[in-house]
Amino acid sequence: MDTMQDDGATSGESHARTAASTPTRGRDRATWDRDVVAGILDATPVCHLSYVDDRAGGPITIPTSFARMGDDVVFHSSSGAHVAALARDPDRDGGPGQVSVCLTVTLVDGWVLARSGMHHSMNYRAVVVRGTARLVPDEADRRAALAAVLDAVWPKRSEHCRPPDARELAATSVFRLPLDVVSAKVRAEGAVDDPADIDGPWWAGVVPVRTVVDEPVPNADLAPGITLPRGS
Amino acid sequence: MDTMQDDGATSGESHARTAASTPTRGRDRATWDRDVVAGILDATPVCHLSYVDDRAGGPITIPTSFARMGDDVVFHSSSGAHVAALARDPDRDGGPGQVSVCLTVTLVDGWVLARSGMHHSMNYRAVVVRGTARLVPDEADRRAALAAVLDAVWPKRSEHCRPPDARELAATSVFRLPLDVVSAKVRAEGAVDDPADIDGPWWAGVVPVRTVVDEPVPNADLAPGITLPRGS
Repeated sequence: MDTMQDDGATSGESHARTAASTPTRGRDRATWDRDVVAGILDATPVCHLSYVDDRAGGPITIPTSFARMGDDVVFHSSSGAHVAALARDPDRDGGPGQVSVCLTVTLVDGWVLARSGMHHSMNYRAVVVRGTARLVPDEADRRAALAAVLDAVWPKRSEHCRPPDARELAATSVFRLPLDVVSAKVRAEGAVDDPADIDGPWWAGVVPVRTVVDEPVPNADLAPGITLPRGS
Repeated sequence: MDTMQDDGATSGESHARTAASTPTRGRDRATWDRDVVAGILDATPVCHLSYVDDRAGGPITIPTSFARMGDDVVFHSSSGAHVAALARDPDRDGGPGQVSVCLTVTLVDGWVLARSGMHHSMNYRAVVVRGTARLVPDEADRRAALAAVLDAVWPKRSEHCRPPDARELAATSVFRLPLDVVSAKVRAEGAVDDPADIDGPWWAGVVPVRTVVDEPVPNADLAPGITLPRGS
């Protein structure tokens, strides 16, 4: 199967896709076009964040929320969480306050069913950011990052909820990761089969997949008359 | 914000949730209930796969397809891909043919908007599998795993496409990862705010999110009269 794997990490080349372009596979799909990267990062508040387990040595990957702020992405954790403990470790390579991470954002757009099993694929938009995440020390910066994460979930949500108090801020680690080592991959086309298979008896095409946001459901304990600001 | 991060890796306890249970946070949501884990893994063909970069030292996380086969998950890569190269490295800890990975599956069910910024969360179902992925050597096992990945995308798809030929099989690395170190987390409730905030002027509730699969779109070069078997 034609996967998304071929070194999803970095690429030194930008490949603009046009309707007339030859179908491409694997690493040829990579781009570091700034607008493409930003567009994907801005389309969802959910990422997968990975770090290396200091105890067992392998990677750990968790879903979490994030936001893009200019040329950085920001995310946070409870100060008791593993990634925060790693960042506080004074014995780490590079010193305390930082941790090597990979932050990956994936939007799935469809299942690509090819005539041959091995050319099955997915249509998707993905961004992989690698690098050193650093704890944000300044309180105003921390507040701005937390607000950005809220606003990534729902427009202007940070203006319509209670802001963090001192105790909550103290219990939260906020990280900033620069968009330096970053690549995007976009697959957005039909099945690409071997020429010998084109006349075969198998169906080929795309099953579109999309994410739908439904009407908000108020909490059972919400007082009457309070409505959700739409933010726009 | 109430994130998914608090040690998403492993848990030694099972926490069955009931309608009458007290709202729980963080690590209390973890379960290793076998049916919960299987149900989440079987609900999507997409995972995020992480391994540690032998060149730069940090983690790399990529989206890819996978399938559950009993008490294992299976995935594959081009034999030229980074994860396959890692597995072939004879100098690795533990010997060649294996690589330390984390395989994470996340299904997002809603944005939880709380009265306070820090209690915003997501409703989600997630499974984190950690361990040693091993190359599958036997050809029949490799074919079965590749078929399982196809069938995870579309029911019985492996029966309705051209199977891999010898050249394709040789160019593909197939991995098996046991469901030994695995945990699931499920959040499926409204906003959980601090008592002092309950009477505040802010909206609280859940914005439901779901994934929709639309009608298949045939390839432009598909011969007339070929239909897509629905598999069920």
